Amino acid sequence: MKLMRVGPLGQEKPAVLDKDGKIRDLSAHVADIGGAAISPDGLARIADIDIAGLPVVPADTRIGACVAGTGKFICIGLNYSDHAAESGLAVPPEPVIFMKATSAICGPNDDVLIPRGSEKTDWEVELGVVIGKTAKYVTEAEALDYVAGYCVAHDVSERAFQTERSGQWTKGKSCDTFGPIGPWLVTKDEISDPQNLGMWLKVNGETMQNGSSKTMVFGVAYLVSYLSQFMSLHPGDIISTGTPPGVGLGMKPPRYLKPGDIVELGIETLGTQKQTFRADA
Amino acid sequence: MKLMRVGPLGQEKPAVLDKDGKIRDLSAHVADIGGAAISPDGLARIADIDIAGLPVVPADTRIGACVAGTGKFICIGLNYSDHAAESGLAVPPEPVIFMKATSAICGPNDDVLIPRGSEKTDWEVELGVVIGKTAKYVTEAEALDYVAGYCVAHDVSERAFQTERSGQWTKGKSCDTFGPIGPWLVTKDEISDPQNLGMWLKVNGETMQNGSSKTMVFGVAYLVSYLSQFMSLHPGDIISTGTPPGVGLGMKPPRYLKPGDIVELGIETLGTQKQTFRADA
Repeated sequence: MKLMRVGPLGQEKPAVLDKDGKIRDLSAHVADIGGAAISPDGLARIADIDIAGLPVVPADTRIGACVAGTGKFICIGLNYSDHAAESGLAVPPEPVIFMKATSAICGPNDDVLIPRGSEKTDWEVELGVVIGKTAKYVTEAEALDYVAGYCVAHDVSERAFQTERSGQWTKGKSCDTFGPIGPWLVTKDEISDPQNLGMWLKVNGETMQNGSSKTMVFGVAYLVSYLSQFMSLHPGDIISTGTPPGVGLGMKPPRYLKPGDIVELGIETLGTQKQTFRADA
Repeated sequence: MKLMRVGPLGQEKPAVLDKDGKIRDLSAHVADIGGAAISPDGLARIADIDIAGLPVVPADTRIGACVAGTGKFICIGLNYSDHAAESGLAVPPEPVIFMKATSAICGPNDDVLIPRGSEKTDWEVELGVVIGKTAKYVTEAEALDYVAGYCVAHDVSERAFQTERSGQWTKGKSCDTFGPIGPWLVTKDEISDPQNLGMWLKVNGETMQNGSSKTMVFGVAYLVSYLSQFMSLHPGDIISTGTPPGVGLGMKPPRYLKPGDIVELGIETLGTQKQTFRADA
């Protein structure tokens, strides 16, 4: 299933994409796409609904972030060997974890705000993993049992804030609108192999990133297991699994986003995003 | 006012401490201590209630974290010059920001779980600042207008996870129960100067930390303003402002917590916490 949230910011309703590409309103059946609704039982209940009988939502309705109630937005750094190389950093022996503020989450096609003082706003297409069941000390073999599904995540990053403004990357990762998520939470039954998904990103129509999740250093199952050794993962938590090569920081000379730039990105089967970047007020 | 949340984990009710030290049930008046209830208007409404007429909660009721609905748990690193020195690190030119998972939040007297594989679980008494109104690009002069009040925060830390397991401190800061908060959210009208509060921490009765918020490098107003340049702060967000000297990492040789250890900590006017550390199951 392709689950989604549609409507004005803060008033999104749960919805599902039907097989003809129509958006169908799920709000008579679930309160939102998050929490118990994306647990294994919750997803089984949604799967039993006669989707074709649900009200159609107009196609031009705003699409919100595909998950509600995210408690943790955990990102993995340097998780593609080629991206580590372009960043001038070694592949780490263990996953590098940082947090993105959940207040950065926005819809996949919302404008992204370049924060005041920013000169190095950069792009990163990433495979997002959405947790569906509380996971603590789980093994790699059982890890995917705790995953509800996958989504496109854009880990927008301000490189000067991230690395030139005193320690810890979260400062350059957490600005408002720096976390477009969606359009869909694609349930894991539709993804035969999360480690074989093509992913791409364009700036003003020019391809910048063109990779595949198969070149991840630490795969999804490993990451879920690994993270669960340090903290409980809860339904609605998002893990953004790192970006392939092609970010602005890695170009010679580096290239960053300016107001008016349009970024499009997508992952095979998971849909596409399109954002206009503009200066924050 | 000293606002609090009492009852079993996950079922806490809002409450207030009256001037005789009795806990009074606020649940007929506010849904919880968080969101709109801790906005300037919300706090004014609570201040108008006849506290003496509210039901008394038994004194032995469990105390939960003093704030609900925390979206961000932002910590400031190395914010006391003496603590930076004991950590062998320079005082940074700008505040160091890292995130603690909100899933680490627990009550002030709950048991703290030493995670599997931990050998370096350490203590840090910190002044917590609770946001009451959305803050974005606010000046230092106006910053305290956005603060609802203050609380004791224990930034429990696993030093090996934090610094020896590949990049970014969040890994050693986010374990379940690593964020005891409370007992009270003390509204800012009761704190004449947040930069002059005594703070202390004992392990098994022995004083380890004995400092004052007056030796902070970056003060509360500066921090709120600074953080708001990078991301919106929302009601219920907590800023933990760093720890004074005396952590286990800084001792020669370093000293860490083991199952059965009892940690007590407190901040002048803000109350005390007491935790038993035990091995996670």
